[in-house]
Amino acid sequence: MPDHVRITLDESELPTQWYNLIPDLPVPPPPVLHPGTHEPVGPDDLAPLFPMALIGQEVTTDSYVDIPGAVLDIYRMWRSTPLHRARRLEQHLDTPARIYYKYEGVSPAGSHKPNTSVPQAYYNAQEGVKKLTTETGAGQWGSALALATALFGLECEVWQVAASFIQKPYRKTMMEVWGAKVHSSPSEVTNAGRQIRAESPDSPGSLGIAISEAVEVAAGDPDTKYSLGSVLNHVLLHQTVIGQEALAQLAKIGETPDLLVGCTGGGSNFSGLSFPFLREKLAGNMNPTIRCVEPAACPSLTRGEYRYDFGDTIGMTPLVKMHTLGHGFVPDPIHAGGLRYHGMAPLVSHLYEIGLVEAEAIHQNECFQAAVTFARTEGILPAPEPTHAIAAAIREANRCRETGEEKVVLIAVCGHGHFDLTAYETYLSGQLVDYEYPEEKVAEAMKAVPVVAGA
Amino acid sequence: MPDHVRITLDESELPTQWYNLIPDLPVPPPPVLHPGTHEPVGPDDLAPLFPMALIGQEVTTDSYVDIPGAVLDIYRMWRSTPLHRARRLEQHLDTPARIYYKYEGVSPAGSHKPNTSVPQAYYNAQEGVKKLTTETGAGQWGSALALATALFGLECEVWQVAASFIQKPYRKTMMEVWGAKVHSSPSEVTNAGRQIRAESPDSPGSLGIAISEAVEVAAGDPDTKYSLGSVLNHVLLHQTVIGQEALAQLAKIGETPDLLVGCTGGGSNFSGLSFPFLREKLAGNMNPTIRCVEPAACPSLTRGEYRYDFGDTIGMTPLVKMHTLGHGFVPDPIHAGGLRYHGMAPLVSHLYEIGLVEAEAIHQNECFQAAVTFARTEGILPAPEPTHAIAAAIREANRCRETGEEKVVLIAVCGHGHFDLTAYETYLSGQLVDYEYPEEKVAEAMKAVPVVAGA
Repeated sequence: MPDHVRITLDESELPTQWYNLIPDLPVPPPPVLHPGTHEPVGPDDLAPLFPMALIGQEVTTDSYVDIPGAVLDIYRMWRSTPLHRARRLEQHLDTPARIYYKYEGVSPAGSHKPNTSVPQAYYNAQEGVKKLTTETGAGQWGSALALATALFGLECEVWQVAASFIQKPYRKTMMEVWGAKVHSSPSEVTNAGRQIRAESPDSPGSLGIAISEAVEVAAGDPDTKYSLGSVLNHVLLHQTVIGQEALAQLAKIGETPDLLVGCTGGGSNFSGLSFPFLREKLAGNMNPTIRCVEPAACPSLTRGEYRYDFGDTIGMTPLVKMHTLGHGFVPDPIHAGGLRYHGMAPLVSHLYEIGLVEAEAIHQNECFQAAVTFARTEGILPAPEPTHAIAAAIREANRCRETGEEKVVLIAVCGHGHFDLTAYETYLSGQLVDYEYPEEKVAEAMKAVPVVAGA
Repeated sequence: MPDHVRITLDESELPTQWYNLIPDLPVPPPPVLHPGTHEPVGPDDLAPLFPMALIGQEVTTDSYVDIPGAVLDIYRMWRSTPLHRARRLEQHLDTPARIYYKYEGVSPAGSHKPNTSVPQAYYNAQEGVKKLTTETGAGQWGSALALATALFGLECEVWQVAASFIQKPYRKTMMEVWGAKVHSSPSEVTNAGRQIRAESPDSPGSLGIAISEAVEVAAGDPDTKYSLGSVLNHVLLHQTVIGQEALAQLAKIGETPDLLVGCTGGGSNFSGLSFPFLREKLAGNMNPTIRCVEPAACPSLTRGEYRYDFGDTIGMTPLVKMHTLGHGFVPDPIHAGGLRYHGMAPLVSHLYEIGLVEAEAIHQNECFQAAVTFARTEGILPAPEPTHAIAAAIREANRCRETGEEKVVLIAVCGHGHFDLTAYETYLSGQLVDYEYPEEKVAEAMKAVPVVAGA
């Protein structure tokens, strides 16, 4: 067997439908509530922000949704993404585990995010929308939406979390090359931004704040809609191309995973890989353990409360039931900007609650140590977010070395770290800080979470 | 036909041999000369710097050289690289031309350079070498060698041109993640570096200076060899996997190119794509025009003299017959760092001299304008070097719009520009300078080029 195995699919084997997990669940997830009435929201409540096609996908009970041809044409620019066997990493760890990783960093934007930005731009363009607004933390999502809007001829305006805007000027330029307009958030161009700046002039920003700004601008202009890169059902739906491909790729070499690991910030990359495997698990065809990995400094699943909260900081969005650290919580400045979110996808939260997935939290030094080992054995330099999944996989591979188990481990490596070298430099020079869980800050933020009767 | 076409190869279709153009040439290229005796160099002259396997490949008359299994295993990590049809670019340009591009940016180091760094590290490791030294301009080559040495357990020491060291700190960190030690060149750790710094304390460095430093350290330590990322025959040989794949990919869809364009700095990416097509041209199977594209600020082929010169600035290397602007020439700080070399691969120079390839020079603003158009239509953000080839292809596509010709154009897109966003930012803000050809500086540098009797 060669040292390295890379499994790709023929164009004819690419998924042509997205997979919707919800109809297959033993318990349906709780409804999304209107923030004023606490009643379930309807399509009209969401129409100012999203095109009808995406609102339909948000609540669909169909198990499969056809991928439009124009979206497939663009997916084919980089899909299928490769599934690699990490033979060199296995040898380095001297583990009997067989480690595979699904690598989404080959997309033009460098992550899994274009899997949803492309259909979102497509459906908005179809419905006559002129401009999309959004937020971005690490810059991966903003880049992905800038790319997608360039391809469909839409304008794009991005609020980039201030800490990231300063740390990652290259991400900003990348978005500008694709034609987007980029603001540092909190900005002076929205009421939400001005309010935060008045209260906290040096705010490093947060995803919640940036969402408030992007939502405000979209809500105020009939030709503009808002686009979210994670959390929502339709986003998770679009990402299922990842797991469908991985299932087909593993089947080609006759492997069945014992463990799937993916990092969770909003939950879209994890969901994209795991939902098609969950379908197989629920159907009794395989029985993998499915594990979310989150930063110890922002551990919404392992430490947050499961209750209704706002998706943004100001409190403009509907209420969703999720594991939350409080919508006002601003995490410490860890380098995994994509994992600095106060909540978790409602669907992932629900899966955790009903015991279909498990979770663990890892500190960033262990993650970067894992990343350097990965880079020196597998070549690829991962983004800070998937280093969490890699670190968890290495933990498992080390356990297998002790027990002798030949576990098959599948890792979601959702993006490259080409814009995160400052973080690597900080790690290599021994300056990286492992922030403790900010118990008091979370307790304070939780006080502002609304109480929903009977939920 | 879908809007986008991406052609890949099965693992079984990957090249298993490198192609050597030299035996197929109507006129053999001139020999490499010893700088002292002006006699042709022999293997012993090169042995302090290179392992015997590579010296053998440098002078081989075999048409094909087997790729070792351990090298193939690593190539398979990212090869075959995709061949894309640029349908969106064609539509944007409203051209009847059919434009294809071979994209090497999917390698872990982000360019075509690992195609040769991997075999170079392999052969050195096989012969017991402990450390490799090299220079890097844009950082692509240094990254590629750092990656390859990490995979084969060698040490790596890189001299990065000072201008690039300052402009691109991320490239330095990337090399460090893979375990390399990186110096800014001219450095204080070599005689060559100290000499240059004494003469010119603020020197921005050049590839020629950095080569002098890396060669000096390798020559002084029996366990250390030197590794070059372009120019030499064995480097060009390794890169022919690109063109062999592209030939097979075009054959799959029944296309024959009318024009190949590639950027030329040292010449390795251009050669890698074009040599297998030149084989077909010489055999009478097709008749493509093959065009080198170089920066107007460093135009070795279109403005340089064809004569024997040193490969480095200090004059430590053998003498090679090439198009040169003088080994002491330091180009203006254009952003295509990989194209800031005073000379050109002797083999490419020879092809230009005997009329098998042609050349043109383009200013950097036109190149970046082409790059932004490319990014907004094809998604991919190219490195500054291949923007030269893209700009040349767009010139041709625009000519085809006038003439109605349905030319098939194949572009070598040799790397991504993720570490070059500063250059894009400079372009987008209107600050990018088109340096005029420095006639007087070149004339001055040419005075120091040695005179070789009878050559």
